[in-house]
Amino acid sequence: MPDLAQRGGAARPGRIVSEDEARRELAASTKIGVALLAPGEAGYPPRLAGIEDAPPLLGVRGQTEALMRPMIAIVGSRNASGAGLKFAEQLARDLGDAGFVIASGLARGIDQAAHRASMGGGTIAVLAGGHDRIYPPEHEDLLFTLLAHGAAISEMPLGHVPRARDFPRRNRLISGVALGVAVIEAAHRSGSLITARMAAEQGREVFAVPGSPLDPRAAGTNDLIKQGAMLITEAADIINAVASIMERPIELPGREPDDVAAFDEPDSGDRARIIALLGPSPVGIDDLIRLSGARPAAVRTVLLELELAGRLERHGGGLVSLL
Amino acid sequence: MPDLAQRGGAARPGRIVSEDEARRELAASTKIGVALLAPGEAGYPPRLAGIEDAPPLLGVRGQTEALMRPMIAIVGSRNASGAGLKFAEQLARDLGDAGFVIASGLARGIDQAAHRASMGGGTIAVLAGGHDRIYPPEHEDLLFTLLAHGAAISEMPLGHVPRARDFPRRNRLISGVALGVAVIEAAHRSGSLITARMAAEQGREVFAVPGSPLDPRAAGTNDLIKQGAMLITEAADIINAVASIMERPIELPGREPDDVAAFDEPDSGDRARIIALLGPSPVGIDDLIRLSGARPAAVRTVLLELELAGRLERHGGGLVSLL
Repeated sequence: MPDLAQRGGAARPGRIVSEDEARRELAASTKIGVALLAPGEAGYPPRLAGIEDAPPLLGVRGQTEALMRPMIAIVGSRNASGAGLKFAEQLARDLGDAGFVIASGLARGIDQAAHRASMGGGTIAVLAGGHDRIYPPEHEDLLFTLLAHGAAISEMPLGHVPRARDFPRRNRLISGVALGVAVIEAAHRSGSLITARMAAEQGREVFAVPGSPLDPRAAGTNDLIKQGAMLITEAADIINAVASIMERPIELPGREPDDVAAFDEPDSGDRARIIALLGPSPVGIDDLIRLSGARPAAVRTVLLELELAGRLERHGGGLVSLL
Repeated sequence: MPDLAQRGGAARPGRIVSEDEARRELAASTKIGVALLAPGEAGYPPRLAGIEDAPPLLGVRGQTEALMRPMIAIVGSRNASGAGLKFAEQLARDLGDAGFVIASGLARGIDQAAHRASMGGGTIAVLAGGHDRIYPPEHEDLLFTLLAHGAAISEMPLGHVPRARDFPRRNRLISGVALGVAVIEAAHRSGSLITARMAAEQGREVFAVPGSPLDPRAAGTNDLIKQGAMLITEAADIINAVASIMERPIELPGREPDDVAAFDEPDSGDRARIIALLGPSPVGIDDLIRLSGARPAAVRTVLLELELAGRLERHGGGLVSLL
């Protein structure tokens, strides 16, 4: 997994950014209304914080309260049938009426239908690029409408133009924020099936809408059902299935969900303590927060500074080390 | 469950038939090529013999060897879509190529498509009325074609015109002869769902073809999958699922599958011994066969004579008593 410096490097290849540049990046984010949040902070989707490779920083724009509510992801073909689009709209609307926020990927087809129909109940666009690099470009209007009724999230820095390989990576966030993922119309080997696989790996419910064996747009969803996904034909199927999950507390081992301080600057003591705790051996971000006594927001800012300066390496499982 | 005298009474209400009339019934059956077979005899479908309410006598017409081979039932809407009919044909043909005989109900729609496409591999029509009362009447030609490539079976006496309530009763035989039942296009509360329920009660596999939630002809099959039926999109799904079942021996507790003597007349000693074993207390047919030392075919003939004479009562679980 590339670290943030590498990701920034995709837009500005070959450069190591300075601490000043890191500060300018933060300022530019703030300017277009993007808050950079760490797991455990208000606005960072609680269930996303629980996945193994949760983004250490998430750029959040729009109505952040929507990100704290129970979410269902709806994904499917860009090249959807009229019936598929109609079903996606109905499902999104009914789930919204039942109190669920809808997460999707802002793509053409099913994603677009799901976002449009969930404006009333709350809708979340999960982006593959930076917040200022909307894909597809013709959905910028949809995004701006959406921001009044929900939010957009991205783990990528400003200016990052999404590449093909960013979409599968992004898909883990679509499933990660949600209680479950509903797949509507997906051909064999489509991106929606990657989202479904990631959902299963994350312990999320996978829902699939069936279709005729003679319809290639149902081949992927029928396969998912064969592999154990739950067949759904209406919102009630999903609502009943997630009822028991919602009763369980969200598991965030090692994190302090009560500590939801707003973004602020670390003081020089925080910075010194955090850097002192870091070395060439990987250490958990949770441990850094606990051992430094600093707030999560402060730890996150220091790590971001180090990362943008090319001095930090991120490993799996929330571990970091100094370079 | 009505006994055979009552069933004969449906065509000839209010009459008790004599032993002579019973013999005439047997002669008439033989004349149109219908053999009356008891469980365990060659031509009586082995798996059917294992169900709780297996017909004590089954009228069999056509190529009886087809009834001894592994069968899959295909059922579905009379009012099927073009896609449903096409899928039924493909499924029946592919299962036939894989060595399976197809059982169905000779109805319009899916049944008809399944029979037509399985002429090559073997096809079985399970009738709700007597062998000389084909329903629907316009499928008499289909039946005659079918008899050259398979068989028709009925538990009803000659002359019995099928009534509405005979169809659900018949459906237990469709599932009973088969390893599993594939349901293709079924609306809510359709007859095919009765067959599926009986299949589940009999421990048969239930397979269902999915469809769009917006298609009412898929509502029943989608519901079946929600309830645990296996979603299928091709013959291979069924072939893989029944492979393990076929490796297990067929369980016929208390019966003697090796004793498959052909139909013949009981001698006077058989008849006397069997009648002596009967009384007002219910006794098992299996016990009658064992205790009388007569062949199953002989016991069956004597019981039929008694039944047609109004002197025998049948109870559940293969028990009979004298009236």
